[in-house]
Amino acid sequence: MAFLVLSLSCPDRRGIVALVSQKLADLDVNIARNSQFSDTGTGMFCMRTRLELQGTPFSPERLQVELEPVAKQLDASLSIRAEEDHARALVLVSKYDHCLVDLIYRRQTGEIPIEIPIVVSNHEVLEDIATAASIEFEHVPADNKERSEQRIRSLISQHDIDLIVLARYMQILSPEFCRDFKGQIINIHHSFLPGFKGANPYGRAWERGVKLIGATAHYVTADLDEGPIIAQATEPVSHRDSSQSMMVKGRDIERRVLASAVLAHCEDRIFLLGQEGNFRTVVFE
Amino acid sequence: MAFLVLSLSCPDRRGIVALVSQKLADLDVNIARNSQFSDTGTGMFCMRTRLELQGTPFSPERLQVELEPVAKQLDASLSIRAEEDHARALVLVSKYDHCLVDLIYRRQTGEIPIEIPIVVSNHEVLEDIATAASIEFEHVPADNKERSEQRIRSLISQHDIDLIVLARYMQILSPEFCRDFKGQIINIHHSFLPGFKGANPYGRAWERGVKLIGATAHYVTADLDEGPIIAQATEPVSHRDSSQSMMVKGRDIERRVLASAVLAHCEDRIFLLGQEGNFRTVVFE
Amino acid sequence: MAFLVLSLSCPDRRGIVALVSQKLADLDVNIARNSQFSDTGTGMFCMRTRLELQGTPFSPERLQVELEPVAKQLDASLSIRAEEDHARALVLVSKYDHCLVDLIYRRQTGEIPIEIPIVVSNHEVLEDIATAASIEFEHVPADNKERSEQRIRSLISQHDIDLIVLARYMQILSPEFCRDFKGQIINIHHSFLPGFKGANPYGRAWERGVKLIGATAHYVTADLDEGPIIAQATEPVSHRDSSQSMMVKGRDIERRVLASAVLAHCEDRIFLLGQEGNFRTVVFE
Amino acid sequence: MAFLVLSLSCPDRRGIVALVSQKLADLDVNIARNSQFSDTGTGMFCMRTRLELQGTPFSPERLQVELEPVAKQLDASLSIRAEEDHARALVLVSKYDHCLVDLIYRRQTGEIPIEIPIVVSNHEVLEDIATAASIEFEHVPADNKERSEQRIRSLISQHDIDLIVLARYMQILSPEFCRDFKGQIINIHHSFLPGFKGANPYGRAWERGVKLIGATAHYVTADLDEGPIIAQATEPVSHRDSSQSMMVKGRDIERRVLASAVLAHCEDRIFLLGQEGNFRTVVFE
Repeated sequence: MAFLVLSLSCPDRRGIVALVSQKLADLDVNIARNSQFSDTGTGMFCMRTRLELQGTPFSPERLQVELEPVAKQLDASLSIRAEEDHARALVLVSKYDHCLVDLIYRRQTGEIPIEIPIVVSNHEVLEDIATAASIEFEHVPADNKERSEQRIRSLISQHDIDLIVLARYMQILSPEFCRDFKGQIINIHHSFLPGFKGANPYGRAWERGVKLIGATAHYVTADLDEGPIIAQATEPVSHRDSSQSMMVKGRDIERRVLASAVLAHCEDRIFLLGQEGNFRTVVFE
Repeated sequence: MAFLVLSLSCPDRRGIVALVSQKLADLDVNIARNSQFSDTGTGMFCMRTRLELQGTPFSPERLQVELEPVAKQLDASLSIRAEEDHARALVLVSKYDHCLVDLIYRRQTGEIPIEIPIVVSNHEVLEDIATAASIEFEHVPADNKERSEQRIRSLISQHDIDLIVLARYMQILSPEFCRDFKGQIINIHHSFLPGFKGANPYGRAWERGVKLIGATAHYVTADLDEGPIIAQATEPVSHRDSSQSMMVKGRDIERRVLASAVLAHCEDRIFLLGQEGNFRTVVFE
Repeated sequence: MAFLVLSLSCPDRRGIVALVSQKLADLDVNIARNSQFSDTGTGMFCMRTRLELQGTPFSPERLQVELEPVAKQLDASLSIRAEEDHARALVLVSKYDHCLVDLIYRRQTGEIPIEIPIVVSNHEVLEDIATAASIEFEHVPADNKERSEQRIRSLISQHDIDLIVLARYMQILSPEFCRDFKGQIINIHHSFLPGFKGANPYGRAWERGVKLIGATAHYVTADLDEGPIIAQATEPVSHRDSSQSMMVKGRDIERRVLASAVLAHCEDRIFLLGQEGNFRTVVFE
Repeated sequence: MAFLVLSLSCPDRRGIVALVSQKLADLDVNIARNSQFSDTGTGMFCMRTRLELQGTPFSPERLQVELEPVAKQLDASLSIRAEEDHARALVLVSKYDHCLVDLIYRRQTGEIPIEIPIVVSNHEVLEDIATAASIEFEHVPADNKERSEQRIRSLISQHDIDLIVLARYMQILSPEFCRDFKGQIINIHHSFLPGFKGANPYGRAWERGVKLIGATAHYVTADLDEGPIIAQATEPVSHRDSSQSMMVKGRDIERRVLASAVLAHCEDRIFLLGQEGNFRTVVFE
């Protein structure tokens, strides 16, 4: 049995579900699972539907065409994807390896449905990890942001990339880059935002004497550390912790939170609503 | 604006959502929120829909009648309730007061949409708590189970009760009673089931040297401590804890877990699928 | 058997434990439990010891005198208290009742060893709750901070108060007041500091789209929302939460975190090290 | 600066701390950190002390000799270890790789102070993982328990092993083996014991409809799944989870819990008190 995933968002109004589900029933496509949400903040409706094709020969492209008139009627953005298709991610790293190692492991076990055709870094130190996993690695120095982003853009198009993961990438992307890849760049920040934005959060957490540390995965926007949050988690620390031991504990939180965000993205469970300066995420379970 | 809550469960098949949502659209009723789930274990589909009545004059009863043909067609059990209507709960207690005190507080703040017309106990010690909250209290001794359950049944019908909450009630209900009120009795068990079924779980948790204690809210069935689970939570303990301090920490978990289960029940977010010996709950967020 | 609690802090050096424990052994006093910590940040050593008096007739005062020379030798601040003695707390509230209700309940069950001789509020709305618990209530209007703090100071001395608990008190205390009662005022802030300092944290958390909300208990200093943290906790929220539902969920976190901080204080498990602008807490388990 | 770790356990009595700390002070050894606990269940006292050698030339062996008389006087078991010395672990695995991969990663980052000279498996499938980390791998078939345990015993002595980690090893060790290596074998069980002892816990957790899954790390004793617990954790699941997705989520819990237990063991923070059938662990922070 084959499954498709339909994602739809549009201004909220009466009868959306009836319209879409009736059309699907007419096409003899079964709704295996459906999540939907009306966001009062933005007035937007979003819906993620897992479709079961029992013998019906629909390709994602074909079904998309069939649903075009409905999408038009609803002024909706609508996309269809075969569930078995994997997102293709470019992973950006610097020197810390824990998030990269974790993503590679989860890719290999199939826990996250993702391809990682290439890892890009402003350092060379993680090359061996990529290579050992048979992933292409490219060192793109960060000394000239324009040139380095140009190279990253070219790799994105060359490798047909859907998703950019900043797995502890310690460089800031340009506003243009952030805008062009809106909703396609996931970053892991090593604090529970909005606490400890910016550099060295573990050191500052230690200084502040917090009793919890955390991590935040978010889409990247031009507004640094202000991007729409996808996932967060915290763990207890105590007076016995140094900023170093917080960092070690934090690694575990970071990789779990990043994995959870990347998984949600790859399964089309995230909707990014609103606009610059006022984004919101809906993350279905 | 008035809201209704529709709950529907039926054998899973193609086109359920289309059928129901089309009917609702025809009636000019808006779907404000919709949760649905197809349970592969039981082959059942369930759906909870929050309906918005913009000026439409439907009473719950009227809408129920309108949807009768759809329910019949789907072989579905379907119910409609005005969101503002509160469940009416009979709370059974023994000597511990923490769950009762907590439910009364959450009722008063409006956090749980519930009426508590009567508290029943096999002891007299919690009478003052009920009275101070202007709730009727009745002492029903447990020395004769048949007679005491008869009295409880009579109170249930007299007070038009929808829900029975065992808020640390230390008596066992008869199988007949459990069956007659299937899916209407919520119990809080002071361990993370299936660990430590039966009596004195904190003492046994201490003896076993666990590093986590927990609590479980479940619907009561004839099968003691085997009822379908609604909510669970755990908290860390250490070698420093005695069974007494575990009990104190456990009180906090118990009241939170019970409150969360009662709230989900009162908001019609729980579906009880399957049958005796093989129940499952779906608990929508 | 009677127990005393010894608290000692002093500049770290070699042999502190040997000195103190030898002295206690000489006095035939048993160490039932001992926690100690050397804080590298401040260079301070702190120690909390539970002493068992098996038939020995030492009063706290007497033992304090006996240990005076050791304290002097170590340049230590040292205090002794009978474990059964309860802290005496003045609770300051405004209109929210959940923290007050919770503290009263935990006092009554004996979970927190505390007396609450008086509740003070800048509003009258919580008077009934205090009165029902046989606690004196005084309405001290906040329109004139100088006059109101003068009145609070007078109540503190009149009721022999050790601890001031701000149980959602919505007024800011003067720097002088904060300094005079350093380490004796516990506040509950309804966010995981340093995120969402200041007013309306739930509204701002909702706007920011966080996936966790939290609460922070801290000692109050002149530096608003920057006081040394005692306890923190977080709970998950989702896109389905409104700022209102976050507030409701937050109440549960707030009361748990405040209770945990007040308990630690009453059991002399907290040490406040460092100085204005650079405080740290050690919170023994 | 060099650090030593002293571990001592003995029947509880007055003056232990004084005796030990005075002796250390006489030897001019500083107590950098001290944890102690009197267990009322077993009547045992245990103490873990981090000693700072400021220029003093004590080897662990030398200090052990110096403290021998004190140990004798207290009827104590006492051991001293250089903090920088790493435990040497033999890791037993079957086919699941997540715990092995995780331990290797944490060893490499230095997060767990451990050597892994050899990985032993009753299957061959994980050989590449060991080899890639430059760890010796040996396939010891499980068809003849006596012969396989003999081989494992021989590898233990050959590699000077201190600790045996069952990282999802699906074979049962003989009672003799368990007894001979009491307190030296750590197992990860994929449920929150005592719930779901025995085989296939995720399948049974799904059938039971739990709302939490968990993992338990414990020392292995002859009594299967009844060994003294070191660490436990749980995570939420819902009706949407299959037993397969519980297994995937469980992997994350298992590796965290196992890592935390192995770390505590390697840092000498665990004391195993009591005896067969009535063990308890003290796990210092």
